[in-house]
Amino acid sequence: MAYSDGLLEPLFDELYPICRSIAGPGLRRSLDILGRFLPLQRESIASGSAVFDWQAPPEWHVRTGRLTGPDGRVVADFRDHNLHLVSYSEPVDVRLPLTRLQPHLHSLPQLPDAIPYATSYYHRNWGFCLPHRVRQALPDGEYHAYIDSAFLDGAVDYGHCLLPGDSEAEILLSSYLCHPSMANNELSGPLVLLGLYHRLARWNDRRYSYRFLLNSETIGALCFLSRHHRHLAGHMAGGMVLTCLGGDAARLSYKLSRGGDSILDRVMRHLAAQGLVQTHPFTPLHGSDERQYGAPGFKLPMGNIARSRYGSYPGYHNSLDDKAFMGIDTLVRSIDEIEGILRQVEIGGRFLNRQPYGEPHLSRRGLYPTLSNAQNRRRSTDELEDQRAQLNRILTVLSYSDGEASMVDIADAARLRLQDLAPVVRQLERAGLLAACLPPRERGEPR
Amino acid sequence: MAYSDGLLEPLFDELYPICRSIAGPGLRRSLDILGRFLPLQRESIASGSAVFDWQAPPEWHVRTGRLTGPDGRVVADFRDHNLHLVSYSEPVDVRLPLTRLQPHLHSLPQLPDAIPYATSYYHRNWGFCLPHRVRQALPDGEYHAYIDSAFLDGAVDYGHCLLPGDSEAEILLSSYLCHPSMANNELSGPLVLLGLYHRLARWNDRRYSYRFLLNSETIGALCFLSRHHRHLAGHMAGGMVLTCLGGDAARLSYKLSRGGDSILDRVMRHLAAQGLVQTHPFTPLHGSDERQYGAPGFKLPMGNIARSRYGSYPGYHNSLDDKAFMGIDTLVRSIDEIEGILRQVEIGGRFLNRQPYGEPHLSRRGLYPTLSNAQNRRRSTDELEDQRAQLNRILTVLSYSDGEASMVDIADAARLRLQDLAPVVRQLERAGLLAACLPPRERGEPR
Amino acid sequence: MAYSDGLLEPLFDELYPICRSIAGPGLRRSLDILGRFLPLQRESIASGSAVFDWQAPPEWHVRTGRLTGPDGRVVADFRDHNLHLVSYSEPVDVRLPLTRLQPHLHSLPQLPDAIPYATSYYHRNWGFCLPHRVRQALPDGEYHAYIDSAFLDGAVDYGHCLLPGDSEAEILLSSYLCHPSMANNELSGPLVLLGLYHRLARWNDRRYSYRFLLNSETIGALCFLSRHHRHLAGHMAGGMVLTCLGGDAARLSYKLSRGGDSILDRVMRHLAAQGLVQTHPFTPLHGSDERQYGAPGFKLPMGNIARSRYGSYPGYHNSLDDKAFMGIDTLVRSIDEIEGILRQVEIGGRFLNRQPYGEPHLSRRGLYPTLSNAQNRRRSTDELEDQRAQLNRILTVLSYSDGEASMVDIADAARLRLQDLAPVVRQLERAGLLAACLPPRERGEPR
Repeated sequence: MAYSDGLLEPLFDELYPICRSIAGPGLRRSLDILGRFLPLQRESIASGSAVFDWQAPPEWHVRTGRLTGPDGRVVADFRDHNLHLVSYSEPVDVRLPLTRLQPHLHSLPQLPDAIPYATSYYHRNWGFCLPHRVRQALPDGEYHAYIDSAFLDGAVDYGHCLLPGDSEAEILLSSYLCHPSMANNELSGPLVLLGLYHRLARWNDRRYSYRFLLNSETIGALCFLSRHHRHLAGHMAGGMVLTCLGGDAARLSYKLSRGGDSILDRVMRHLAAQGLVQTHPFTPLHGSDERQYGAPGFKLPMGNIARSRYGSYPGYHNSLDDKAFMGIDTLVRSIDEIEGILRQVEIGGRFLNRQPYGEPHLSRRGLYPTLSNAQNRRRSTDELEDQRAQLNRILTVLSYSDGEASMVDIADAARLRLQDLAPVVRQLERAGLLAACLPPRERGEPR
Repeated sequence: MAYSDGLLEPLFDELYPICRSIAGPGLRRSLDILGRFLPLQRESIASGSAVFDWQAPPEWHVRTGRLTGPDGRVVADFRDHNLHLVSYSEPVDVRLPLTRLQPHLHSLPQLPDAIPYATSYYHRNWGFCLPHRVRQALPDGEYHAYIDSAFLDGAVDYGHCLLPGDSEAEILLSSYLCHPSMANNELSGPLVLLGLYHRLARWNDRRYSYRFLLNSETIGALCFLSRHHRHLAGHMAGGMVLTCLGGDAARLSYKLSRGGDSILDRVMRHLAAQGLVQTHPFTPLHGSDERQYGAPGFKLPMGNIARSRYGSYPGYHNSLDDKAFMGIDTLVRSIDEIEGILRQVEIGGRFLNRQPYGEPHLSRRGLYPTLSNAQNRRRSTDELEDQRAQLNRILTVLSYSDGEASMVDIADAARLRLQDLAPVVRQLERAGLLAACLPPRERGEPR
Repeated sequence: MAYSDGLLEPLFDELYPICRSIAGPGLRRSLDILGRFLPLQRESIASGSAVFDWQAPPEWHVRTGRLTGPDGRVVADFRDHNLHLVSYSEPVDVRLPLTRLQPHLHSLPQLPDAIPYATSYYHRNWGFCLPHRVRQALPDGEYHAYIDSAFLDGAVDYGHCLLPGDSEAEILLSSYLCHPSMANNELSGPLVLLGLYHRLARWNDRRYSYRFLLNSETIGALCFLSRHHRHLAGHMAGGMVLTCLGGDAARLSYKLSRGGDSILDRVMRHLAAQGLVQTHPFTPLHGSDERQYGAPGFKLPMGNIARSRYGSYPGYHNSLDDKAFMGIDTLVRSIDEIEGILRQVEIGGRFLNRQPYGEPHLSRRGLYPTLSNAQNRRRSTDELEDQRAQLNRILTVLSYSDGEASMVDIADAARLRLQDLAPVVRQLERAGLLAACLPPRERGEPR
């Protein structure tokens, strides 16, 4: 079956109930489902392997998780909602009074109907998450906590694929796949990534190569980096983590990469100056996998793009983050807008004027008015203004395309809009006056 | 006959009526006239030769151009004013009704008494220019358009000469010589250039070498560059096109070179910060030959200096641009002011403190007050302030003259005026404490 | 006897009456006294030796200086106050009328009770300094000027010592010792330097090496530089002249070094941005020996630290500059504050994240909260804010410690306070996650 945006909703519905975590069957099944429409190269790092300063974790397998009250009523059941169980809970079968149970309970006083999302990946522990309203009403007495889970040696899985372009320089688009049933802060990213893959696959003039990556957050990104960081150091021209791309914010938000000067960073700043997107500075404190790519040992130019950013909406990291909040339509809008951004990245780089010795003879190529004195023409002032603006764009692009300044630098310096330069760039390329500079980055070259 | 500024007016009167164009007898005769007072090295590029992306044009020879009305009255005659003919008009001898004639007529509705200036260099065409008032009154009927012109193989001519200085580093002063009877936007530049040659020839302490160049605009500049751009790449420290130096604007306007950081650019920005001149950013859209020098294949540091800039006065490119508008006196004022600017360029560059290990022993050389405690002296507060300001200038020049910072950088950083540092520089040079750094630029070194 | 801050006052009282000058017994005796508590390496440059552009002066030995009036009354006597004699006065025994005496007298009309400080080092002369009130009352008649002084070949003495640290990179702290009886603008510097030596000697974790230097101003600094400037070029990371550290100004003032970018300059700018100190730009016009270190042949990163700056208080360079104005307590406060500044310099430099591939596994080292979802904890909002701020400091230090950015750059960029990063730096060093980059500067490497 061929991909179309109409498949986003059924795919969402199929992926949503799966209990994903950073390693294990939920992650694998999700990769399988998305792999039906993405030619993912699947890789894995065995549990226990050293991954830089970390160790690949064991897989978490969970069958049942149930908290029963003194009266025999089930207070929280994993089968009702997988958020009820703290992710990576160890197996437990214990009866204990409410006071000793409390440290294992998680709820949100400020959102009394939401089930929070909690994890304990690297410290063995167990716990249940439940609405604060339910927790407040718990009677004293003996509770039965029963979790049938296991930590098994397995692997951390991830998958990626490449759409090659004229240059081996790559734009990396990644998203994470490791949270249980959440929508905006889990499935919005992989689904937008899927849509973008199919948009860019249809372009017949890709200058850059585009790599699409799905991994569990943090440890999955480190696993991918452990295999590919040298390749990325030599090839990566820019990139971004796709995250939280649903919700109701009007504009996309871009968190700059650590260096802040990749081609994508520059285009986003250029668009932000026009009020079309928002940009935020890099911070290692919060965000997603761009924090790993930006670490001082890598310094890879990874940003992060979101619509409703982490922490900016009430449903963040709890059961209110569902399809209604996210909005399938919003995903399509995000796909449209990011495709438009990438079109500008395509012409935002460096070009070389191929007739750089003086002003090229434009009139010979039909690119210049014939008479230098246009005052007698039967043309409106607007037409003349348009003609002059067009000539300015042509001469500006030619004059500054020296293989050093990027087109977005040129647009910024000349106070022109990159989107207005795009047709001029193509016109001058067709006329043989301009050539893109897209050398493959040297393998292993540090950024 | 020796040059004096008093010759500017008779030279103007001799040059004004000549029908110049980008190649041909008018250009040559004008170079001959100016060559009486400038030791021009004459060069030429044969018609048809490839000149970068262009081809050297044929010469345009014109004997007659006359438009006669249905009643036999002459509507426009080349002999009355050479602007009546579109420059590079092809030969024609045709009778045609007014409606078919109109596309060949040029006039200015907003200046109904002016004859516009029109050209058609690279697209064969013909036409007449006339006052809009006359054009409006033209009766219907059959007109006789007669142009006796020819395109002959010949050459594009230009001429240049050098005033050598201590260093082989050159300041290039150029102007263009290719318009028919116009004053500010044609003859003001060459005449100011002539005056400057004789001012600078009298200096006995030139640090830089000065090259003076006269060429037809655009193609003439490209012809010169085709022969000399490698020399310029290795020697040119700065330069400017002299243009539109008459008119009534109070201050000179300088358009920065493409790189914006030549010694001349820096001095002009320094003077602009004091309100003495105006500066404008480089643009490839309008201006003069600096657009060719600044092309990415050359990146030569050429600016443009004007008083009444192109496009800023009503007479621009029409018959109102005459001697009365331009003003011979204004040319002399421009010569004075540009000479003053070049004097500052002379000391605006890099210098080396020759006693750089600590503060030199100034008192031994009579450059410092003997008693460190001056409080008992019978001196006014103003005298003490002056003495302290002078000491500040001396110490600032010495402290920062490390062969890296230019004097104009030093003046900017210390908030001093370059014109106030000039006497200090000479004093310290005489004392053997300072030496100019004027290495010849390496031949062929890219800027 | 061991040093304690309580010794500052008796040392002041012992040093104050000594008639110091730029070379001679007063300077030597002062170095001897301070050398009881500082392991000074004593060096000297013989009178007459060439010292860059200067010559080491002869020593000035003075036994008596007395001006007697027509009535036999002593008007000014060197034994009463050594400021009565112009420093480096030549011997004289002459009787002369008041009018011929006047050019040899110095007084301050605006401070009629103060004896000014005057010198004539490099131009042979003689003179007396006296209160303006006394001078105004001098009767006509014959005066007897008697000065029993001698210029003897000897040497310019100075002394320095080093507190070694982990790195051979040095912070140079110097002060001058060449004025007769003055307090703030003479003894405050050497006494603060002495106190700092003993503070830093007690640190058991010095990263930098600290050099302490006492010399006569200007010529003494040049003598030191003539022997050691190559060593400093290869080792000096920053430094400052200690001067005028008494008086009543609330904050310390730091004059930036000529380059303005040493580690000390950066720390001081960082503190100035918080309003804790004031900074002033480098100027070669006034100040102290930093003007010599900053000369273009050296470009050594020497600043200047003061409390009541030269010229900013009435007693500057006259007899009002005494212990009461200076304040022994203020010296101790200056020692405290400068020690605090140097503690920040210690962690202000470059560090290397030793687990630079992604975010290190902090929780394994007890540096991160165990549960990623902290919402159920019984912690106040303030506690959570503190925890988050601490995590931000940890991640910021790790993320930007790439061996290129200094810690003060990192603090500036992240809008954090260097003093708040200090405990984080030590914590991460102990955890093996961070290592200081303090390579010895290459010998002879130009700054």
